Amino acid sequence: MDKLQVVKIGGNVIENREALLDFLKDFATLSGPKILIHGGGKEATQMAEKLGIEVQLIEGRRITDTQNLELITMLYAGKLNKTIVAHLQALGCNSLGLSGADGNSILAEKRPPNPIDFGFVGDLTKINNNLFEILLQNGISPVCCALSHDGKGQLLNTNADTIAATVAGAMSRNFEVHLNYCFEKNGVLLDLNDASSLIKTINENQYLNLKEEGILHTGMIPKLENCFNALRAGVKQVKIGNPKMITETGTFTQIIN
Amino acid sequence: MDKLQVVKIGGNVIENREALLDFLKDFATLSGPKILIHGGGKEATQMAEKLGIEVQLIEGRRITDTQNLELITMLYAGKLNKTIVAHLQALGCNSLGLSGADGNSILAEKRPPNPIDFGFVGDLTKINNNLFEILLQNGISPVCCALSHDGKGQLLNTNADTIAATVAGAMSRNFEVHLNYCFEKNGVLLDLNDASSLIKTINENQYLNLKEEGILHTGMIPKLENCFNALRAGVKQVKIGNPKMITETGTFTQIIN
Repeated sequence: MDKLQVVKIGGNVIENREALLDFLKDFATLSGPKILIHGGGKEATQMAEKLGIEVQLIEGRRITDTQNLELITMLYAGKLNKTIVAHLQALGCNSLGLSGADGNSILAEKRPPNPIDFGFVGDLTKINNNLFEILLQNGISPVCCALSHDGKGQLLNTNADTIAATVAGAMSRNFEVHLNYCFEKNGVLLDLNDASSLIKTINENQYLNLKEEGILHTGMIPKLENCFNALRAGVKQVKIGNPKMITETGTFTQIIN
Repeated sequence: MDKLQVVKIGGNVIENREALLDFLKDFATLSGPKILIHGGGKEATQMAEKLGIEVQLIEGRRITDTQNLELITMLYAGKLNKTIVAHLQALGCNSLGLSGADGNSILAEKRPPNPIDFGFVGDLTKINNNLFEILLQNGISPVCCALSHDGKGQLLNTNADTIAATVAGAMSRNFEVHLNYCFEKNGVLLDLNDASSLIKTINENQYLNLKEEGILHTGMIPKLENCFNALRAGVKQVKIGNPKMITETGTFTQIIN
């Protein structure tokens, strides 16, 4: 099976133009089939303020109402996605931006309103492998933003980490998939303020122990859950680390079975 | 050669949700390969106001500065394009949204700053037939917004009528292309206030005469120029009319050699 690299970048890379261009240079040099998945960043909140759109939080989690969905569609599928694609083209990497509706690539169903109504948030149901394969076979790198759709005309907000894990898992049917979560830290740290506390590898038992002991940063828990889901779905290699890890020069934690 | 339908819709259809859904239902029923190209509409101006972005006009024509380019990228490639694609998917039409950067589909160069600096406006240089053909061969209808790119990382604002004519012309290499410009009138009218003044056909000589006599509405002139350019580029059939013409039930003017 051919190797396929699935790389996810988050807010920290996207919010800083220099960091984004740096990362895209590295991504463009990766040889072979590759898929980029990007999150959103803080701009959605800033722009919501400017437009007078209320951002409603329940238990610290954002509710995606109609206006907020419209806003993130503009930002994620519009501004961010197209900026990334245009720069990758300039770097000689033929890429094509996708929301989940494009080519029916990423299907989801609206999360049930109980116990909490998160609004237009989608739980993934199906990845259209065929579309991704057509693009990859033609030398095109798909660039996915954090939007799925329900197939009935509704776009849905979906966590980019989850999209990355699910796309990587689905693509494992025909590829040896390597999944890289790039973020602002060097990997999984035992002490957030101590870079030397980096864990080189983590398996699910170790993860569950660290979680129980309260040692893991809360933001790391859903990220690691996605990593283990990806491994279970057949992904060959999963890493969390800084963006430089994709060129083998960065640091990372490898998530293992 | 297979028939390919290229359909352009403008602001009037896009600004009215009901009209848009009506049109998309008709578009979804068209059999065979098809490409949709959409303009922007007045929302860009409304949102510029909300965001405090200045809209600069020179000789009645809009200047696309950095902020305005960002805004139309959000609106055209984000909100409008993805709304259209999501609805087409719901109607059973597998579509995929494109800016000119996506798949390197529509290349342009920035318009020279003399005599007027229009900012980030692109004059088309190349259509990537290959990308359109790959999508069409796989039963996917491309949905293009009014954005091209220069291949060097810069997105550019380009008139959707011009994109439609140029894509239709380029695709004539391997298809019998039928180009439909849908707009708010029933076709080319000798008297804007009299629907019965519709011209059934118009050739270039008749056009030049009507233009010289000042009978044509100024908005119609660049539209017709695009139509004649398309015919010259090998497009088989070019029509201007109301959106219903794509189902053979609307009225139109056919542009002929």
